[in-house]
Amino acid sequence: MKLDDLPTPCLVLDRTILQRNLDTMARAVSRHNVALRPHMKTAKSIDIARLALSNPYGRSQGITVSTLAEAEYFTGHGINDIIYAVGITPQKLDQVAKLNAAGANVTVITDDADAAAAIAAHPSPTRTLIEIDCGEHRGGIDVGDSALLEIAGRLGGRLAGALTHAGHSYTGRTPAEMAAIAETERSAAVRAAERLVQAGYACPIVSVGSSPSALYAERLDGVTEVRPGVYMFGDLFQAEIGTHPEDGIAVTVLTSVIGRRPAERRFLIDAGALALSKDRSTEATPHDFHYGLVLDLNGHRSYGRTLVQRVNQEHGVIEFSSGVALPDLAIGTKLRIAPNHTCLTAAAHDRYFVVDGDNTVAAIWPRVNGW
Amino acid sequence: MKLDDLPTPCLVLDRTILQRNLDTMARAVSRHNVALRPHMKTAKSIDIARLALSNPYGRSQGITVSTLAEAEYFTGHGINDIIYAVGITPQKLDQVAKLNAAGANVTVITDDADAAAAIAAHPSPTRTLIEIDCGEHRGGIDVGDSALLEIAGRLGGRLAGALTHAGHSYTGRTPAEMAAIAETERSAAVRAAERLVQAGYACPIVSVGSSPSALYAERLDGVTEVRPGVYMFGDLFQAEIGTHPEDGIAVTVLTSVIGRRPAERRFLIDAGALALSKDRSTEATPHDFHYGLVLDLNGHRSYGRTLVQRVNQEHGVIEFSSGVALPDLAIGTKLRIAPNHTCLTAAAHDRYFVVDGDNTVAAIWPRVNGW
Repeated sequence: MKLDDLPTPCLVLDRTILQRNLDTMARAVSRHNVALRPHMKTAKSIDIARLALSNPYGRSQGITVSTLAEAEYFTGHGINDIIYAVGITPQKLDQVAKLNAAGANVTVITDDADAAAAIAAHPSPTRTLIEIDCGEHRGGIDVGDSALLEIAGRLGGRLAGALTHAGHSYTGRTPAEMAAIAETERSAAVRAAERLVQAGYACPIVSVGSSPSALYAERLDGVTEVRPGVYMFGDLFQAEIGTHPEDGIAVTVLTSVIGRRPAERRFLIDAGALALSKDRSTEATPHDFHYGLVLDLNGHRSYGRTLVQRVNQEHGVIEFSSGVALPDLAIGTKLRIAPNHTCLTAAAHDRYFVVDGDNTVAAIWPRVNGW
Repeated sequence: MKLDDLPTPCLVLDRTILQRNLDTMARAVSRHNVALRPHMKTAKSIDIARLALSNPYGRSQGITVSTLAEAEYFTGHGINDIIYAVGITPQKLDQVAKLNAAGANVTVITDDADAAAAIAAHPSPTRTLIEIDCGEHRGGIDVGDSALLEIAGRLGGRLAGALTHAGHSYTGRTPAEMAAIAETERSAAVRAAERLVQAGYACPIVSVGSSPSALYAERLDGVTEVRPGVYMFGDLFQAEIGTHPEDGIAVTVLTSVIGRRPAERRFLIDAGALALSKDRSTEATPHDFHYGLVLDLNGHRSYGRTLVQRVNQEHGVIEFSSGVALPDLAIGTKLRIAPNHTCLTAAAHDRYFVVDGDNTVAAIWPRVNGW
């Protein structure tokens, strides 16, 4: 089967590019004496998890997930060492306990003393990391907060370490800025671990990670593992902030031309708000890519900076840049769209059509969406 | 089962509100001698389609869909009279033909002479409407365009009428503005039909519709059917533009508190960019609701204008308005979020948990997502 035969819109994954991205991150992490624990929130696929864990450059250990649906799916496929890196609620502990009773080792996170007490009171001993805020100000406690030892005390034997996520690394625009944020991330996690150890707790896991900080960290002393995720695919936002090459975007949306107004250099495609998402991350970067960059069927940048300018639910409007020769696109012509934010775009699709740098569909890989 | 027992995030549909919304539109359309052909792109559910077609106030006839996945799903559930209201490509005709060979009557649309020729050349006789642009400037030809008769000529016996969609009705902010746009929509479709009839073609279907124009049209003479969709659920954007009551939003996202910083009046919830979508339609309206309005577990507006201020993939950040007494929300407390744009939010979920104005789950209804 060829890409040109596929129903549109659909999601295309170039395995050659994926493997290159996996190698780049594995090499970057191998500079440090830490494990790579890939975050599967972007890829949500057992086939991709297996590739990400097959690391010839260093040590990979388990995975990170963003939903309990992912935890269930991946344990069902034999990956048992999992950190569920979104704050746990008491109500979700039964599901975690069920997975662990069946042989998994799903570790949860909390930044709340009452939730810690509920974890400790639950009959199933769920390993738990304390979430530290290293500057993103989303989840987590400040490393100097007295709550750190209070939560540790409540967790007792459930305590397995400290975790932080420098989500604000995405505001960095240069390797030096990313390296500085990575050091903030490292030092917050390590200081939390030191406080815990000084207070007499074991702290076997010291977990940090975002793709920018994992890539640009200068040292990771004291850290045991990093958890990047979006590096597997990359996207236009990552390219704009300098953490990913623009020609290294592994995932694109295959779409068909469904309308044409060549006099206005405008075409309509069947990839709209649902197939591309309405994520506008590049609005904050030097070059705004609106809803995605238009590539040809081969994934090549044949149309300059031609963008998906606007979207409705199932319609995308593309306008060819004035500097580009206007192609003659019949109704039904296939194009590919590089995503603004790959995590959001991929989540609209239930499978990948996998190619190896060409137009032949070599495999179909399912994704685990939802909750 | 109670709402409080459900895993979060998930989608809640209040059937009582849904029925009220269905009645309001059915009554509005019954003022005119036209059929209601509900657009299922928002609801994507056979259970909801059956309610929308059970119209005690007037005549309903068939449904509209936005994907071939919807067409296949609804014909599989016995609804055969369908307009697929996104421009067809030659490559998609086989799938339509297959549905029609099995007893369905899926009508397609085109605004392109070459596509019309492909439709005419296809062995299966697919009924086709010519898409007219009445001012949205997305798909469709101008009503005065010579292409109208050219496309009709190519379609020959496949021609079944004319269709237009006043997507720009969403720029209206008053009933008078909506009524004016509705008249533009009506007159474009009717003029197209008149031109076709004058040229000797039959034009049995004259189809218009968006929720605002269906609601506010003053006359629909010459029109045979209207195709509103979002009216079934409503959302904050529809409330802002005055086409839907804010207390008539039928769909909300149930979410759990997963973090708390009461000193900053800030809480973290497990409904983020994927569960809510990143649609920001209300950015263009008087009151911007960011990623949604925070309601209590009962769906009541207990927290004033407290909004989901920002989202990451699985995290939402809510900030309680300064004018509101800060509630004491433990980790795991359930809240509900009214969506900014309901079509996009609902599409992130694969089922509805149905309630009847209370907190008891009376049914679970699946949705047909994807393509």
